[in-house]
Amino acid sequence: MVGGMGDLHVARRRRLGALIAEQDADAALITRLVNVRYLTGLASSNAALLVLADGTARLATDGRYAGTAARVCPDVELLVERAVALRLTALAAEGGMRRLAIEAHDVTVEHFAELVAVDQGMGLPPLGRAVEELRMVKDEAEIDLLRRACEITDRAFAEVLGTVRPGMTEREVAVALERRMVDLGADGIAFESIVAAGPNGAIPHHSPGSRELRAGDLVTMDFGALYGGYHADMTRTVALGSAAAWQREIYELVRRAQQAGVDAALAGAETKAVDAAARDMISDAGYAEAFPHGLGHGVGLEIHEAPLLGSDKAGRLMDRVPITSEPGVYLAGRGGVRIEDTLVVRADGPEPLTTTAKELLVI
Amino acid sequence: MVGGMGDLHVARRRRLGALIAEQDADAALITRLVNVRYLTGLASSNAALLVLADGTARLATDGRYAGTAARVCPDVELLVERAVALRLTALAAEGGMRRLAIEAHDVTVEHFAELVAVDQGMGLPPLGRAVEELRMVKDEAEIDLLRRACEITDRAFAEVLGTVRPGMTEREVAVALERRMVDLGADGIAFESIVAAGPNGAIPHHSPGSRELRAGDLVTMDFGALYGGYHADMTRTVALGSAAAWQREIYELVRRAQQAGVDAALAGAETKAVDAAARDMISDAGYAEAFPHGLGHGVGLEIHEAPLLGSDKAGRLMDRVPITSEPGVYLAGRGGVRIEDTLVVRADGPEPLTTTAKELLVI
Repeated sequence: MVGGMGDLHVARRRRLGALIAEQDADAALITRLVNVRYLTGLASSNAALLVLADGTARLATDGRYAGTAARVCPDVELLVERAVALRLTALAAEGGMRRLAIEAHDVTVEHFAELVAVDQGMGLPPLGRAVEELRMVKDEAEIDLLRRACEITDRAFAEVLGTVRPGMTEREVAVALERRMVDLGADGIAFESIVAAGPNGAIPHHSPGSRELRAGDLVTMDFGALYGGYHADMTRTVALGSAAAWQREIYELVRRAQQAGVDAALAGAETKAVDAAARDMISDAGYAEAFPHGLGHGVGLEIHEAPLLGSDKAGRLMDRVPITSEPGVYLAGRGGVRIEDTLVVRADGPEPLTTTAKELLVI
Repeated sequence: MVGGMGDLHVARRRRLGALIAEQDADAALITRLVNVRYLTGLASSNAALLVLADGTARLATDGRYAGTAARVCPDVELLVERAVALRLTALAAEGGMRRLAIEAHDVTVEHFAELVAVDQGMGLPPLGRAVEELRMVKDEAEIDLLRRACEITDRAFAEVLGTVRPGMTEREVAVALERRMVDLGADGIAFESIVAAGPNGAIPHHSPGSRELRAGDLVTMDFGALYGGYHADMTRTVALGSAAAWQREIYELVRRAQQAGVDAALAGAETKAVDAAARDMISDAGYAEAFPHGLGHGVGLEIHEAPLLGSDKAGRLMDRVPITSEPGVYLAGRGGVRIEDTLVVRADGPEPLTTTAKELLVI
C-alpha cells in the first residue's frame, strides 16, 4: 500500500510538472501545506516542495518532521531546514532557473518580499490553483478513504439518533455525534459540527449552544468524520415528537430538491446547472430567498474545495469528483431544513457515499 | 460584562489608532481574523476591520455573521458584504485616504493585487504585527479566561491520571483528556493533544497513535483547554510502574530547568535570558543537543503567539504577559521528558496558572 501510494504521488507530481511546463516555468514552489501533502503524502505544519517541469521534486521541512518525511516519501530529495520556502527558492536560483511559479493565493506580501530577496532576479509568476485543480479529480485510493469517512458518519448518526431526546442541548447532541465518530475509528471531526434546534435551524452556520431540544422542533445536524485526511460531510434534519404542516412542507421540498441535485450531478454537467436543478425547485415553490447559499462543494483533503456548486460558479463536473448536495430552506424566527449527502460523480452516474435515508424522521 | 468587554474593545482600537498615527498612515486594514476578533469581539471566518488613526472603525462581514456582529459590537459601523477587505479598501479610497496600512503578513500576493485594483492610488504600506504586539499584554478579563482554561486543564489531568493503565493506547489517553476537558466546561481543545509513550517521548510533536502504554515507560502528555477564545497549554511526564535511574535523572533535570525558566520570567527580563536560565542548566548537564526547541511562547487568542522564548529571540517580558515554560530532554530511541506550565508575568513576579505538582509521579 505504501508503495502504491508512493506511485500515486509520483504520478501527481508528473501531472503538475506538465502544467508547469505549459506555463513556460522551470519549476513551481508549492507552499500550501495541503498541496504539499497531496503531492508527497507528508502532513506537516512547516513544509514546501519544489516541483520541476519534469516532475522531479525537492522537499523541505524542519527537524520535527524529518523522520516522518523520510518514511512517507523516501523517493523525494529532502532538505531539513526551518525556512522552507526561502531555502527552495535559493536552490532554484542557484540551479540557474529563470521562472519559478509560486502559489500567489498562499504566499503573503511579507513572505513574497523575503523570496524576492533571494531569487537572484528569477521571475516569480503566479502558478494559480493548479494543484487544487489536480486535486479535484480523485484517485480511487482517495475515494476509498472518503467512503470510509462517510460510512463512519452514517453509522454515528444512526447510533446517536436513538439517544436524542427533548431536554438535551444542541451542544450535547454535537458532542455525542463527534465522540461516536471517533469511537468508530475517525481520526477526528471534519469540521465544527452544527446542531441547530427550533428557530436556530434558520441560521445555516449555527454554533451548537445551550438551547434545549423541545418537542415540535426541527433539529438540523451537519457533521462529518475525518479519515486518512479525507472529510465527510452530511446533514440531516429530524422532527422532534411531531411535525407541523409547514415543517413537512419545507422538508419535502428540500428533500426533492436535494435529490434533484444528486440526480443532476453527472460527468460533464455544468456546475451551475446542477445548482439550478435544486434551486429552481425551491424557487418555484416560492422559497427562493430562503435558500441563500450554493448547492454544494467538493470534498477531499479539505472540507470545502473545488468545485463549488452555485448559481454564479463556472465549471463542469467530471468523473471521480466527490461533491455534496445540500440545499436548505431557512425561515427566520421559525426554523429550517437542510439535507446533505456526499457523493462521487461517476461516468455512469452519481455514486452515493452518504447512505442514510432521507424520509422525514419524527423521533 | 458585555458593556465592560465593549469598553475594552474601544480601548484596544484606540491603542491601535495611536500606532497607525505613529506610522503616518490614515488607517489600517485588519484582515487577520484573530486580530479582528481581538479588536471587536467578533469571531468570524470572513471579516475585516478598517481602523482609523482616531480609533474609529468600520467592520465588514458577510450575511452569516451579520446578526452576531450587531450583537457583539453594536458600537462599530457594520457593512454586510462578502468581499470584506475589498469593500473596506474601496471605502477608504472613496473617503480620500492616502495611506492605508495593511497586514502584509496576512494578505496574499493574489489578494494584494485585488486590493491594488480598487485602491485609487493609495499607498498600502505594511502595518507590521502591530495588533499582535498589542495582544501580547493582556487585560485582566483575558487573564481570567486563561486562568479558567488552565483550571479545566489541571482538573482534567488529575481526573484522567487515575484511569491511565498499561495496555491503553496513546490515543485513548489523548481522547480521555480531551473529553474530560469538554465535560468540565471547555469550549474545545486548545490544540491537537500530544501523548507520547516510551521511545515516542523522544519526538517533541508526536501524534498519539496505537502504541500501548507499558510498565517502565515515561509518558508525556501535552494538552490544553480552549475557553472563551483563550488557550491553555500544559505538559506533564509520568512514569508507568517504575522509573529507571536514567529516567529519574532527566526528569529531575527538566524539572529544575522548568522551574528556573518560571523563576526568570520577570517583568523587564530579556526573553533570551529566560530561555537561557533553563537551557544553561540542561547544557551544563551535558544534554544541550537533547533540547532542540525554544523554552516557551505567549498564549492567548492563539496557542502560539508573541512573545517567543528562544536563544535567538529578541524582546523583553512585561507585566500581564502570559507565557509557557516548557523545556524538554529527548533521547532518540529511549524516550523523553517535557514539563510545561502556563503562567503570567506580573510586576511582582510570575503568577502560575497551571498548578499541578511537578514532582515525578510513578503511577
